[in-house]
Amino acid sequence: MKLLDNLKWRYATKKFSERKVSTEQIDQLIEAVNLSASSTGLQPYRIFIIENRDLREKLGEGSFNRQIADSSHLIVFAAFEKVTLEHINEYMSLISTQRGIPLESVDEFKFALINGILSRSDEENFSWASKQAYIALGTALIAAAELKIDSTPMEGFDATKFDNLLALQEKGLKAVVTLAIGYRDEELDILANFKKVRISEKEFATFID
Amino acid sequence: MKLLDNLKWRYATKKFSERKVSTEQIDQLIEAVNLSASSTGLQPYRIFIIENRDLREKLGEGSFNRQIADSSHLIVFAAFEKVTLEHINEYMSLISTQRGIPLESVDEFKFALINGILSRSDEENFSWASKQAYIALGTALIAAAELKIDSTPMEGFDATKFDNLLALQEKGLKAVVTLAIGYRDEELDILANFKKVRISEKEFATFID
Repeated sequence: MKLLDNLKWRYATKKFSERKVSTEQIDQLIEAVNLSASSTGLQPYRIFIIENRDLREKLGEGSFNRQIADSSHLIVFAAFEKVTLEHINEYMSLISTQRGIPLESVDEFKFALINGILSRSDEENFSWASKQAYIALGTALIAAAELKIDSTPMEGFDATKFDNLLALQEKGLKAVVTLAIGYRDEELDILANFKKVRISEKEFATFID
Repeated sequence: MKLLDNLKWRYATKKFSERKVSTEQIDQLIEAVNLSASSTGLQPYRIFIIENRDLREKLGEGSFNRQIADSSHLIVFAAFEKVTLEHINEYMSLISTQRGIPLESVDEFKFALINGILSRSDEENFSWASKQAYIALGTALIAAAELKIDSTPMEGFDATKFDNLLALQEKGLKAVVTLAIGYRDEELDILANFKKVRISEKEFATFID
């Protein structure tokens, strides 16, 4: 399986080279991430791809993650703070348009979403939306590896600073996880040739037959 | 990119056929999922692959997700309720063994993990562990698609029942998300030929250059 080779190839890059990721490859990455599975299909998150070096310097200020500024691009995954009736209505319109079916034909699905999602607290929905963004992060990591782009997922960042500098709040979004992408500096990254450490499959997975 | 084809091919299967996934393919799936990226590499979750039909019938009882019982196998992703010093110590031993380096050489990393992880509440760590399991779910969805195995991710299940029937509590685990795998029943699954609905890439992704 090609995926196994790609997963074995990737690692959390510590030191990036100056080489930039091409626009064509960024487009492929975005297409893949947008195709990620998402509960009910609602996609309650957005991504921001930051090439601007000054902005990345500001975002990374005071952080021990030099990859924020030193990578080629930084991808920020941001989840909606609240899931609203408007989100559900927009999604229903999208289904109707993309499948060429009348809006009324998705009423049953719409009411199921309203019952399921809008009955939960904003906090629960933000946690749910964040998890959907993590599925997308999983896709992004694999997409990057297939394109032989190195990457570093990072959770330890100043979320409030990110929300401010990227004006996420006014879009109803909050940064939940980030991924620096670029190309490893093979000579300076001591981690580049370290063996990947994983628990045994026997310990990881239990088979019940 | 092969990944794009696989992501376009997959959908949340509603009706599975009787066909079983082979043991060889299950092994490949497990290997891929175990290679998923995980924050700090700690892998604070486990997976359970349930072939036993009776058990799957019990797990799915009262659920609207017939896929729990009707699929070939059900994969349950379960996160640790608490992350403990023992988990960190075991991980350090693993690094030492798999990389063939002295245990003392990972002390700095160990203290960073202790400071970072053990200073958080159990609730925060469970949420963090759950998100790592969602990265793994992202991997599993892609691995299944590459193997042309159909799948259905499901969040709407009775977590307490799952924890009881799988004896997860005594392992310190809690079920967080599930994935039914098998083969679509092309004739009976009306969703099999529906167009995948996604927001435009322009709406999904913002580029800042």
